[in-house]
Amino acid sequence: MKYDVAIIGGGPAGYTAAETAGKAGLSVVLFEKQNLGGVCLNEGCIPTKTLLYSAKTYDSAKHASKYAVTVPEVSFDLAKIIARKNKVVRKLVLGVKAKLTENNVTIVQGDAWIEGRHTIRCGKETYTFERLILCTGSETFIPLVKGVDTTLYWTHREALDSKVLPVSLVIVGGGVIGMEFASFFNSLGVEVTVIEMLDEILPGMDKELSGLLRDEYAKRGVKFLLSTRVTSLTQEGEQVVVSYGNVDGQGTITAGKLLLSAGRRAVIHGFGLENLGLRTVDDKAVFVNDTMETSVPGVYACGDMTGFSMLAHTAVREAEVAVHHILGKSDAMSYRAIPGVVYTQPEFAGVGQTEETLQSHGIAYDVVKLPMAFSGRFVAENEGANGVCKILLSKDGRNVLGAHVLGNPASEIITLAGMAIEWKLTAEEWKKIVFPHPTVSEIFREAL
Amino acid sequence: MKYDVAIIGGGPAGYTAAETAGKAGLSVVLFEKQNLGGVCLNEGCIPTKTLLYSAKTYDSAKHASKYAVTVPEVSFDLAKIIARKNKVVRKLVLGVKAKLTENNVTIVQGDAWIEGRHTIRCGKETYTFERLILCTGSETFIPLVKGVDTTLYWTHREALDSKVLPVSLVIVGGGVIGMEFASFFNSLGVEVTVIEMLDEILPGMDKELSGLLRDEYAKRGVKFLLSTRVTSLTQEGEQVVVSYGNVDGQGTITAGKLLLSAGRRAVIHGFGLENLGLRTVDDKAVFVNDTMETSVPGVYACGDMTGFSMLAHTAVREAEVAVHHILGKSDAMSYRAIPGVVYTQPEFAGVGQTEETLQSHGIAYDVVKLPMAFSGRFVAENEGANGVCKILLSKDGRNVLGAHVLGNPASEIITLAGMAIEWKLTAEEWKKIVFPHPTVSEIFREAL
Repeated sequence: MKYDVAIIGGGPAGYTAAETAGKAGLSVVLFEKQNLGGVCLNEGCIPTKTLLYSAKTYDSAKHASKYAVTVPEVSFDLAKIIARKNKVVRKLVLGVKAKLTENNVTIVQGDAWIEGRHTIRCGKETYTFERLILCTGSETFIPLVKGVDTTLYWTHREALDSKVLPVSLVIVGGGVIGMEFASFFNSLGVEVTVIEMLDEILPGMDKELSGLLRDEYAKRGVKFLLSTRVTSLTQEGEQVVVSYGNVDGQGTITAGKLLLSAGRRAVIHGFGLENLGLRTVDDKAVFVNDTMETSVPGVYACGDMTGFSMLAHTAVREAEVAVHHILGKSDAMSYRAIPGVVYTQPEFAGVGQTEETLQSHGIAYDVVKLPMAFSGRFVAENEGANGVCKILLSKDGRNVLGAHVLGNPASEIITLAGMAIEWKLTAEEWKKIVFPHPTVSEIFREAL
Repeated sequence: MKYDVAIIGGGPAGYTAAETAGKAGLSVVLFEKQNLGGVCLNEGCIPTKTLLYSAKTYDSAKHASKYAVTVPEVSFDLAKIIARKNKVVRKLVLGVKAKLTENNVTIVQGDAWIEGRHTIRCGKETYTFERLILCTGSETFIPLVKGVDTTLYWTHREALDSKVLPVSLVIVGGGVIGMEFASFFNSLGVEVTVIEMLDEILPGMDKELSGLLRDEYAKRGVKFLLSTRVTSLTQEGEQVVVSYGNVDGQGTITAGKLLLSAGRRAVIHGFGLENLGLRTVDDKAVFVNDTMETSVPGVYACGDMTGFSMLAHTAVREAEVAVHHILGKSDAMSYRAIPGVVYTQPEFAGVGQTEETLQSHGIAYDVVKLPMAFSGRFVAENEGANGVCKILLSKDGRNVLGAHVLGNPASEIITLAGMAIEWKLTAEEWKKIVFPHPTVSEIFREAL
């Protein structure tokens, strides 16, 4: 049989494309070489948030006296925390599988190889199809540092599953992944050092708020080395010696474990992409237009492999756009309001433009900024904590261009700003929305 | 001096009106007979949420083992919980005062008496003004039950400040206030019975989800008597005997305390309103048009006294509309997307139409409904819990008409649906918004 749509990769882009196409009545075959749900569900977004919630529960109990609750003693069981994480992942993977089956998607387990525009081989079988959606995702980038080949390092994968806590941990890369693990291991009592090449953690996020978050973790004992390059790695028995250089000179740190989280890169090799002859971006990502179609008509690419944002929720939306285009429905991808979230404590989220991107594009803007303590609920539920809500407005017309929130539950409320940005609302229009009182979300209204 | 604007009442409507008018350069005098912030800040929204957060912290610690965290022993100190509540309230009242002072509002402490269209007396002083904004709020309605005069009952006010827990508590009225106190005292180990006259708790909220929430509290030991009328109250020493009747006949409950939360009613007497001769609604609320102006030009009424929704956030928006009208800015009050929130565990929130209101208006609709477990983050952070997200769409055009969420953090995400409703988005338009993954807020997208 010839499938209407073939999809390579069962992560958020792939499973969304498959579900959407299947629901619309198209015949769909999806190839996944490991686990449905991809990196996001199996070793990314979901497992980290599950671990972080155990850490948060532990922290809340430790600091319960702030709310007049007495907890004389609190401990955790790391093996059980990881077992629960695995259970949550299993449950959600089964959920994804059920949704695909429900929508008549044929799931093929194995390495897919593109033989031609309409043919994929997987194992001994050959599959033919009309349209192809590529969703092969991304993989951890291992920096080519001297000694990396002879060092026992962790990537996020091992960090998620280690049932023994190291006494100390060096994290190379202070991006989202690095900071979430820094938060987790810091909560559980590990001595953490974060080494970041750039002059601030969380590149791409609002720089001022990133600095405030760094200050907060510094207070809790995390050490930060910014504008610092790792020059070599040496394994000394159980320990790792990390040598680095920065403006102050050279130094070394010896730690029980090393986590490399220096970034991810699009997966565009190893599955016969070259047989399609499609256009790439510097051989680093697949080129697509705003309907996610590649330079080869009928072939689409969604998710991390397009190199745009490396976020599951971007991938989900891109997949919908691709399937809508196949179905002849009018739709186009917009990157105007893609939220970014860091699940630290407090959470940090942003959407739309940052001051940095506006400045680099020479766009004039106004900043409205308010401490989170202007929200009554924030005060009620965040004893001793602070935070900031920053909204960026255009000089002409006061359109909402960007919003950045440091403080819980930033992740859950940031899309309110996302809607304002995507719908091109002015501050005045957005302020006409009634926000329930008392909520933290009111901070947007208050700031406007 | 003649003020541009006089305001009676310093609750959410009054302080918002004062701040907005002051910021716009108008001279403003605000009369408050008790505390700035009104019922909401001093004895409503904020203090209840502060108490509830201590109860939540206690519950989390008690059930920490669900997340592989061990807490062998946990206790609470009610006096300290209340002291913290008072501290939070004080801090926020000072914040309100600071904002008013910053915007040059003259605050007059005392009982205001309207002498005429342009004159108010307070104490020995007389104040003249151009425009008047009435924001006198609402008060607890005490039902005229036999024996109520000779019974020692609590209203929300005493319930907020009792440093001794009763062994048992009967709550008359299963609305939002009743259910939030039921949640608080149930968490702290008090035996709670809720008596509700109607056939379901939380009138006005989605009935199906209200029933699910009731089931949840019934599991935790709260007793519910629905469709039940209290027939008499008797004080017997320290105990209160509550006699009631329902379809099963007559019964009595003896409890350590009785909380009356049978509703609130607009305050329209006691401050000379009669001297304005304005139109009322059955002498129960003040009649206003969609710019919040009463039947007397230049006199506005905002907040609970209009009888529309008895919610602080409605009051805030109404106050803005009134001041905008005074300033000649085009604006009008919309009640299409007023969120309602119940801060139980789990939280329950709704916005826009319910199935009940749509049915009563004969409007055809479709229901999309999804268990909260379709959100990966919900699964990660709500072990063993469940919940529901229900969205109501118009039959013609799939416009978003209403949304109802049972599950944390319903209060913080409900405004996403509020924005969709206020902006009259279709399901397809709303679904084009990118929601960060993994968040609970994604449940809306998933459901559509």
